[in-house]
Amino acid sequence: MSEKLIGSCIFGQSGGPTSVINASAYGVIKTALEAEEITAVYGASHGIVGVLNDELFVMEEEDPVELSYLLHTPSSELGSCRYKIADPEVDDTDYKKILEIFKKYNVRYFFYNGGNDSMDTCNKVSRYMKSVGYDCRVMGVPKTIDNDLYGTDHCPGFGSAAKYIATSCMEIGKDARVYDNKMVVIVEIMGRHAGWLAASAALATAYGSGPDLVYLPECDFDMDQFLSDVDALYQKNGKVFVAVSEGIHYADGSFVSEAKTSATDGFGHAQLGGLAAMLAEIVKNRTGAKVRGIELSLLQRCGAHLASATDIDEAFTAGKVAVEKAIEGNSGYMVAFERETVDGQYHCAYRLLPLDAVANFEKKVPLSWINDQKNGVKDEFISYVLPLIQGEANVPKEDSLPRYARLKKVLANQR
Amino acid sequence: MSEKLIGSCIFGQSGGPTSVINASAYGVIKTALEAEEITAVYGASHGIVGVLNDELFVMEEEDPVELSYLLHTPSSELGSCRYKIADPEVDDTDYKKILEIFKKYNVRYFFYNGGNDSMDTCNKVSRYMKSVGYDCRVMGVPKTIDNDLYGTDHCPGFGSAAKYIATSCMEIGKDARVYDNKMVVIVEIMGRHAGWLAASAALATAYGSGPDLVYLPECDFDMDQFLSDVDALYQKNGKVFVAVSEGIHYADGSFVSEAKTSATDGFGHAQLGGLAAMLAEIVKNRTGAKVRGIELSLLQRCGAHLASATDIDEAFTAGKVAVEKAIEGNSGYMVAFERETVDGQYHCAYRLLPLDAVANFEKKVPLSWINDQKNGVKDEFISYVLPLIQGEANVPKEDSLPRYARLKKVLANQR
Repeated sequence: MSEKLIGSCIFGQSGGPTSVINASAYGVIKTALEAEEITAVYGASHGIVGVLNDELFVMEEEDPVELSYLLHTPSSELGSCRYKIADPEVDDTDYKKILEIFKKYNVRYFFYNGGNDSMDTCNKVSRYMKSVGYDCRVMGVPKTIDNDLYGTDHCPGFGSAAKYIATSCMEIGKDARVYDNKMVVIVEIMGRHAGWLAASAALATAYGSGPDLVYLPECDFDMDQFLSDVDALYQKNGKVFVAVSEGIHYADGSFVSEAKTSATDGFGHAQLGGLAAMLAEIVKNRTGAKVRGIELSLLQRCGAHLASATDIDEAFTAGKVAVEKAIEGNSGYMVAFERETVDGQYHCAYRLLPLDAVANFEKKVPLSWINDQKNGVKDEFISYVLPLIQGEANVPKEDSLPRYARLKKVLANQR
Repeated sequence: MSEKLIGSCIFGQSGGPTSVINASAYGVIKTALEAEEITAVYGASHGIVGVLNDELFVMEEEDPVELSYLLHTPSSELGSCRYKIADPEVDDTDYKKILEIFKKYNVRYFFYNGGNDSMDTCNKVSRYMKSVGYDCRVMGVPKTIDNDLYGTDHCPGFGSAAKYIATSCMEIGKDARVYDNKMVVIVEIMGRHAGWLAASAALATAYGSGPDLVYLPECDFDMDQFLSDVDALYQKNGKVFVAVSEGIHYADGSFVSEAKTSATDGFGHAQLGGLAAMLAEIVKNRTGAKVRGIELSLLQRCGAHLASATDIDEAFTAGKVAVEKAIEGNSGYMVAFERETVDGQYHCAYRLLPLDAVANFEKKVPLSWINDQKNGVKDEFISYVLPLIQGEANVPKEDSLPRYARLKKVLANQR
């Protein structure tokens, strides 16, 4: 146990929203409000941007019941940002401003919740504070639906997105097979560089009503092979259901969504409808089939009504552990998840991973979990993802619609 | 009470799928299986097409527990069709075939579940059987997410779709406002001729996180006014959330989704991305804003995991009442819903409406429920729709994914 460090804390949210990032917020805020070492709890408006602009919300002003609704409120309730901070060794302008704010509010704890880029920000803040001898404990809380953070078995946000995708694909699978006609459905799923989310569509197939073909960015995409895969099933079954990751790319690395292709004539407007619409057009031209392109869009990352209880619980705990471990004296770490088997059951253990080990690496779906035809996943993937989607969210309701947190957001600099 | 009519029954599903059409199927099948007047219960494969092709599933062969899962299984489990049947007075070929099948299986009850076109089919079958003196009681069970069936306060399927749309728009509303940048989101909602579904997006606004602007097909669409509406809010708030019905049309009746427009240059690929993508492109060109177009697509009509318990219950009861009323001696009617207020609470009463009064009429959102600017709905609409989305579906789960009915589908002609 290190020496007791007494002071206030700042918590910030960064990067793309998820269904459970506010559950991590609640884990941090609730634990910090209850900690005797922490004298005040501030929530940064739009992450590090709110720190730079001295826009900090006073969490003590919030109704505890409203704060508890954060467990089921999607998106980043304090506001997010995509601000790219400089290397402190190259340009320390931002860091001087951050230090000024930290001193103004006697900030001794900084918790930052996000993905790869956010852990990089977190790491840089940690490094700078150490370099100038300002005593502040910095901890990263992981978040990304993409599940591509290095060093953790999985990320908060992924399980809920996977559950949304699997459930939606089961429903689409039912809908797409209802008529006695021939039809191809192509669903586009998020994941620019890793295929964890698109692979989760295979859960729908494992439970009876999902895609026949799944394409991930872990493998180079071959348009001719894709069309041949679709055509073979189309000739055999008359119905084909395809799931593709938005990040599929050709062997030269160019994204399919951005490429013009010779497989169709006069096509040059991919930006209008995205990848699903583009592939639908190509398949239609090739097979003459009726084809419907569907983009799951924002809904897959903010579908909190379908969140996994396991994910909510782990997201909350990640925030809680970050605060507890910082109070114990740790700094410069991200909370990581380790999968354990206890009495034959899935169990999540919480570990600390040095921030400089996690920042800017990407974790991809193992190639050994992808089938030989590169158009589907093996049982290993299903076994991996299944525990992460378990349990119902039990979202609080008002007139049968979700009841989200309503925060006052009182600014510290206006009190 | 009419004379007892003893014989078998056929049930068929027709038109687009919904989240609760199988709840009506279960209402018909369960009630028919329990009725002593009904000697056998057949489910037609793909509606009237299955009758014509002698493809009838024997419901007595199904496990009662599996049948009960129909309450929560989206899409049309027996298969649907869009078969347009001739007027019996013009061409009776199909009807002779239907009569042959009815005689083969001693069918004395025919229940048909669908929207406008399906009630028309139902009406024609009823008329033909009467004209040839074949004693058969024919009843229509309503269904359409579009809610545009004449003579009924609302339709099974609408409440669940409205709830899906409202919940999804609340989530999109949270997601779309997360960054500290300017942004426009445009969500496209089903409803080719009536705006009930798009109007339901306003529920999300009433509960804290929905669209700022809603455009329905009940009013002529004016592109310049639309762009002016969006621009004004964009300048004021920086964020704009728009919901549009897929059926919005210009004053000359042409659909916006199909029209080329002078408001943007070189645009001629609306078929690629649909209306949302097209409007997003136009708004981007006009305002320079970051714009995201989202199509709720098939998900809004098959999102059974978010079905309204009220809708499920009413859909089931509609099927049950159809069987009960037919056994009592009625024929040539559709089961219609009448809204009553009992002890200050919403209550649904079931009435019989002559099929020829319902077929081929369309019910639209009253103009008096639309605001003067024609870009939103009034409280009257919210009061109308709110009771219809109440109650949770409590979908049976298997490993936290929906557990759908698994029917054996034993064909009567293969036994």
